[in-house]
Amino acid sequence: MPQPLPRAASLAARFHKVRAHSLALVHGLSAEDCQLQSMPDASPLKWHLAHTSWFFETFLLAESKHPPPPFDPAFKVLFNSYYIGVGERHLRAERGLLSRPGLDRVLQYRDHVDRHMLALLADSELRDTELDLIELGLQHEQQHQELILTDLKHHFSCNPLAPAWRAESADQSPRAGDDLGVAFQTYSGGLIEIGHQGSGFGFDNERPRHRVWLEPFELATRNVSNGEFLAFMLDGGYRRPELWLSEAWDHIGLHGWQAPLYWQHDEQGWSVFTLHGRVPLNHHAPVSHISFYEADAYARWAAARLPTEAEWELAAQSEDLAGLHGEVWQWTNSSYLAYPGYQPAAGAVGEYNGKFMLNQMVLRGSSVATPESHARHSYRNFFPAQARWQFSGVRLAR
Amino acid sequence: MPQPLPRAASLAARFHKVRAHSLALVHGLSAEDCQLQSMPDASPLKWHLAHTSWFFETFLLAESKHPPPPFDPAFKVLFNSYYIGVGERHLRAERGLLSRPGLDRVLQYRDHVDRHMLALLADSELRDTELDLIELGLQHEQQHQELILTDLKHHFSCNPLAPAWRAESADQSPRAGDDLGVAFQTYSGGLIEIGHQGSGFGFDNERPRHRVWLEPFELATRNVSNGEFLAFMLDGGYRRPELWLSEAWDHIGLHGWQAPLYWQHDEQGWSVFTLHGRVPLNHHAPVSHISFYEADAYARWAAARLPTEAEWELAAQSEDLAGLHGEVWQWTNSSYLAYPGYQPAAGAVGEYNGKFMLNQMVLRGSSVATPESHARHSYRNFFPAQARWQFSGVRLAR
Amino acid sequence: MPQPLPRAASLAARFHKVRAHSLALVHGLSAEDCQLQSMPDASPLKWHLAHTSWFFETFLLAESKHPPPPFDPAFKVLFNSYYIGVGERHLRAERGLLSRPGLDRVLQYRDHVDRHMLALLADSELRDTELDLIELGLQHEQQHQELILTDLKHHFSCNPLAPAWRAESADQSPRAGDDLGVAFQTYSGGLIEIGHQGSGFGFDNERPRHRVWLEPFELATRNVSNGEFLAFMLDGGYRRPELWLSEAWDHIGLHGWQAPLYWQHDEQGWSVFTLHGRVPLNHHAPVSHISFYEADAYARWAAARLPTEAEWELAAQSEDLAGLHGEVWQWTNSSYLAYPGYQPAAGAVGEYNGKFMLNQMVLRGSSVATPESHARHSYRNFFPAQARWQFSGVRLAR
Amino acid sequence: MPQPLPRAASLAARFHKVRAHSLALVHGLSAEDCQLQSMPDASPLKWHLAHTSWFFETFLLAESKHPPPPFDPAFKVLFNSYYIGVGERHLRAERGLLSRPGLDRVLQYRDHVDRHMLALLADSELRDTELDLIELGLQHEQQHQELILTDLKHHFSCNPLAPAWRAESADQSPRAGDDLGVAFQTYSGGLIEIGHQGSGFGFDNERPRHRVWLEPFELATRNVSNGEFLAFMLDGGYRRPELWLSEAWDHIGLHGWQAPLYWQHDEQGWSVFTLHGRVPLNHHAPVSHISFYEADAYARWAAARLPTEAEWELAAQSEDLAGLHGEVWQWTNSSYLAYPGYQPAAGAVGEYNGKFMLNQMVLRGSSVATPESHARHSYRNFFPAQARWQFSGVRLAR
Repeated sequence: MPQPLPRAASLAARFHKVRAHSLALVHGLSAEDCQLQSMPDASPLKWHLAHTSWFFETFLLAESKHPPPPFDPAFKVLFNSYYIGVGERHLRAERGLLSRPGLDRVLQYRDHVDRHMLALLADSELRDTELDLIELGLQHEQQHQELILTDLKHHFSCNPLAPAWRAESADQSPRAGDDLGVAFQTYSGGLIEIGHQGSGFGFDNERPRHRVWLEPFELATRNVSNGEFLAFMLDGGYRRPELWLSEAWDHIGLHGWQAPLYWQHDEQGWSVFTLHGRVPLNHHAPVSHISFYEADAYARWAAARLPTEAEWELAAQSEDLAGLHGEVWQWTNSSYLAYPGYQPAAGAVGEYNGKFMLNQMVLRGSSVATPESHARHSYRNFFPAQARWQFSGVRLAR
Repeated sequence: MPQPLPRAASLAARFHKVRAHSLALVHGLSAEDCQLQSMPDASPLKWHLAHTSWFFETFLLAESKHPPPPFDPAFKVLFNSYYIGVGERHLRAERGLLSRPGLDRVLQYRDHVDRHMLALLADSELRDTELDLIELGLQHEQQHQELILTDLKHHFSCNPLAPAWRAESADQSPRAGDDLGVAFQTYSGGLIEIGHQGSGFGFDNERPRHRVWLEPFELATRNVSNGEFLAFMLDGGYRRPELWLSEAWDHIGLHGWQAPLYWQHDEQGWSVFTLHGRVPLNHHAPVSHISFYEADAYARWAAARLPTEAEWELAAQSEDLAGLHGEVWQWTNSSYLAYPGYQPAAGAVGEYNGKFMLNQMVLRGSSVATPESHARHSYRNFFPAQARWQFSGVRLAR
Repeated sequence: MPQPLPRAASLAARFHKVRAHSLALVHGLSAEDCQLQSMPDASPLKWHLAHTSWFFETFLLAESKHPPPPFDPAFKVLFNSYYIGVGERHLRAERGLLSRPGLDRVLQYRDHVDRHMLALLADSELRDTELDLIELGLQHEQQHQELILTDLKHHFSCNPLAPAWRAESADQSPRAGDDLGVAFQTYSGGLIEIGHQGSGFGFDNERPRHRVWLEPFELATRNVSNGEFLAFMLDGGYRRPELWLSEAWDHIGLHGWQAPLYWQHDEQGWSVFTLHGRVPLNHHAPVSHISFYEADAYARWAAARLPTEAEWELAAQSEDLAGLHGEVWQWTNSSYLAYPGYQPAAGAVGEYNGKFMLNQMVLRGSSVATPESHARHSYRNFFPAQARWQFSGVRLAR
Repeated sequence: MPQPLPRAASLAARFHKVRAHSLALVHGLSAEDCQLQSMPDASPLKWHLAHTSWFFETFLLAESKHPPPPFDPAFKVLFNSYYIGVGERHLRAERGLLSRPGLDRVLQYRDHVDRHMLALLADSELRDTELDLIELGLQHEQQHQELILTDLKHHFSCNPLAPAWRAESADQSPRAGDDLGVAFQTYSGGLIEIGHQGSGFGFDNERPRHRVWLEPFELATRNVSNGEFLAFMLDGGYRRPELWLSEAWDHIGLHGWQAPLYWQHDEQGWSVFTLHGRVPLNHHAPVSHISFYEADAYARWAAARLPTEAEWELAAQSEDLAGLHGEVWQWTNSSYLAYPGYQPAAGAVGEYNGKFMLNQMVLRGSSVATPESHARHSYRNFFPAQARWQFSGVRLAR
């Protein structure tokens, strides 16, 4: 009897685990919770659950030797995100207007996809390109797992009742530092290499590994804390134009920004909205939910600057800094552009990364919401300069 | 043992019936369906269910001699619509962002309010002002019953799956006329009276009954049909500037309007989205979901005009026209303004009508979605000229 | 030798006088001043000078028996305002982007049109329809003479240097009243007649004269003064939602209105920008540059209301009130709609009035900027409720 | 008798020449032409003439030992562009609303500043920092000389009369190439140096000169021609999503872009609006007035890419390519960010460059509108990706 390939067997185990984790994230939420869409950038949780399944159905099941019938032909359009190569797609800003299919039906869809995918993974003749696509689909689902948390946080933050996802407090727990001040680690630079290497998974935008020349620099040994950011605010940070880029100054004026997203001030002092409800500000935790604008202004105020992504990656290679991963994504002063020699992946999945390489800034590291197995030193996250609903913070360079 | 007042007993029966009808309207819909908000003008059904209860809790229960504890203090803000006299209110456009309270909780709220209201109605010492407020609350709930249907229709129309509220076809059934052409009834006008009279319920904006001088006029004996409106379209109606008011012409150009709302054309011809799904266009049914702009342009094309609200009401008094009620609201060429001697009701409920008396046009009659006991000849419905999501049509005058 | 008709001779004299007055208004202004366009609603003075000439060239000269060659074929599109029947038109909001033709060239255009029009008026065979159109053209030019002043005032108000049109002070001179309080005149109403009558000129929208039933009412014997409006402001007028229509309250919040247009407060107190520069507020002058919103809110604060246009016209017929003309246009609570039996004029000039009959409120009387021979009791001016750049004020009714 | 410093004498000669050139550019234009502002990004020519004078008055004359009285105190605010360190400024989008000061007055202002500046330059004790600021002021004025032409072109393009700045044709004359196809020059890369060096003038953003590692690459020996770009269009370039970045695709759809700015198609074929009026498309001239979006899409269509700014500068150092300067600015795929070790200039002039380092792409070279002495290989021009009103084109790399 033919055996599944060893790589397929390992992928099947990972498939089971990753898919189960998505469901675990929405456990305890109502169908109504999973339908919320509070802004065009943030999708309903139900949509995330369906779209990640759509990925496997579209790129794997429908292309396999014995494709199962589509679970529902309408889903092809409804749960496409932006893959033009796959055909039409439902308008992003209107994802919250779909009460049908209901959450129950989406969970059936997941179940259907899971069963057929596990059957496919048991196939002894899977090609490497298919295995690669499955791996990509799992990485893709992990990205959406982080979005499930950041989007839910934004959705719930619009409700004056301040609902909680989980009772226990977690996302305030990481410690950026105590009160002893921040230290800087020195790097001599030179002709270094960055980018993904080896046979493990990496997105196309992390490749090719290539040489970069770096001048000597220093990097802070930890991320900036809430207490430090508060000092910037108390020093008039949001009211001093000389600290801000021109576009940033216009933006904070237009939107009335005076603190990071989710911060609120009342007679009890500063509090922050979290996935566990509203809690008092923890001065020692890393500052989070700030835009590139704010990260950059803070750095200028602190007589420092943001690192480039090459500086960050070089430092990460030696792993002697705290909080590189698992606290907050760290804004860099690098625009999200192609590496020299960059080639998008073939086919529709080639739309995954390359077509967003404009007017976005790179964030490095990973956050408290990133699935553990999803963090890499060469990982290039990217968002527009004004985005704040991710767990995004700042580490200083100079 | 003291007995409830006869008027109170009668109101209690009506209370029971009206409140039950709201629930009947949402029967079979999911919690997700009831949370949809497809545009700022249309509210989630869950919100309608809660807001109509809030009205009774706020204006009756909270003001009664032995007020019950508030069901949930947060509801005071969440379910206020626009009564500034009552305090803060949740932003209208963000009603769809409330997954909490869930539908279950809102149904408990209704139940709580119902029990306390029925207890109140059993009270032998209710004052007339309280009975008047209860009557107002029921009329208010009936208005929201119509909105439940028109809002749901709009919500569902945004879903490419075209969900149906009920399987059976209903809202296409009324017949505006056959193919025999429309007849006109002549009225001699003169010094007539319009406005609400008698002791039955009427909103403050229907009062006082007053004299109006009318020149002789003619009114069509039925509403304009889909087939007639289609003839206007086929004659280039939407492309001929001379048929449109200046503001209307700009609006249809900007929004690309080429047909009434919910009409769609494909290789099978014209179809319309209804509460029962998408169905072929019924040429004999009254045209519906048109704006004042379109009603006015159609009338100009037909060498006629829209009636004034006084003309309509005079004709309705003699009741010799078909389709005055129960088909479509009929746009008039009257702006929604105060009658001579108008007095808003006292207190916060005085905000109900008067503060909207600007830049709205009056519609008369009632529609297929209007609760039966809610239609009156003196009723003044009003919407901005561009509104199309109500069951709004047109009857010609000249 | 054939003689011009007596009516033609009289029109020729008026033509000369009216056309000269337009030039007198721009005397002393630079070509740069005449090109300003500070908002889409306000046109460059150069455009007014050209458009009023375009009217005569298009509707009279080009249609005459021996039409002169067009002065410049491009002007047909450039200086059309909104007459769709005449063909294409230059975008209203971009009138300020035309440096060519320069003011010099526009003055040559006027001269060309004047010479040919006077030749036409010397023709012994002019038909009545032509004479009517010439009269319409002169009335049209007088309307633009008022706009020349109100638009210039707005243009100049955007310049921090606060330029003056004329050195002497004029538009603050009219006196609405002293400090003795306002009196009300009583009218018994009944079945009255309003609308234009007789053989003199009137726009189509003033016709036909028709009967209206009025209940008894009172009208203030003078317009509201700056001092009285200031009392409303000091009593929190702009901060009290109960005084405002719903749309008005939203509008003043969105735009931050806290005083009439052109008012400014500094350490010297209140001042107003005028066509003669910035001057201290004259408490006795009629309040001007207020919107319908503000007129309506003021009236509610003063326990009064705005008159209807029929009430105003009835009172004007007896001429026992001060300031009906020559001070400020007076907002009424009447929407700008067709009179019963209204017929638009034939041809493209029929677009003059009728197509704007929606979402506009009627103002009655005339202002300090209205050419003297242009004021009539039956005159129906109209603007959207938010418009403030006209000399618009308020007279109370109750 | 003390002599001016040799550097001062040389600067005085340059001052005279540069200032005269600005006047030469507006020679023949009317005061009305010089007041036009067709979009917020483009300023009135009068404003450019005044602002460049304001620079010298503010940073040199007002700071000198014996400052002359200000020509007009109001100019301090009116003609400040964005220097927050200098105080308030007039709103950029409203520069076109200033008819006063008139062009005559602005020319007097220039004369005043010129006389005092030449007196200052005759001073024997000028410090180096002052001489540096004068040099910066002249470079600044040269930048505005280019904007005078690009802004005027945009202003005039909004006039249906298509006015011409100069009769003779000039900006179509440069030849990008014939029909023989484009050749590529190979560079081996390695550890190179870019950035400004030597004692000549350079902006702070060109410094410091620093090392960059480059992989081998090829650069086209000339710029892309109109004919080549037309081939892209005829191959469906603007309708094929796979050729465009995601943001670009959304933008061209929203704005309906189907050709470069100023291109127009009618029965005679393609024509382009130029500073000399509308002329037939010259297939051999370099394509101009394209956005980064279009440059990038063209490159992808041509199976090539845009160069980085380091690649461009390395190639320019060997000067073996045609059209590096004097044809069109060439979009690169480099974001406008600080060089390693970048230090903004001290004082308010430090706002000149650094605060715009976000969401802008670098263009290299110079255009037909660039003053001749203003072009440098290390020059970093920058605009947002959608900007098209500059003379911007594309050179391919791979």
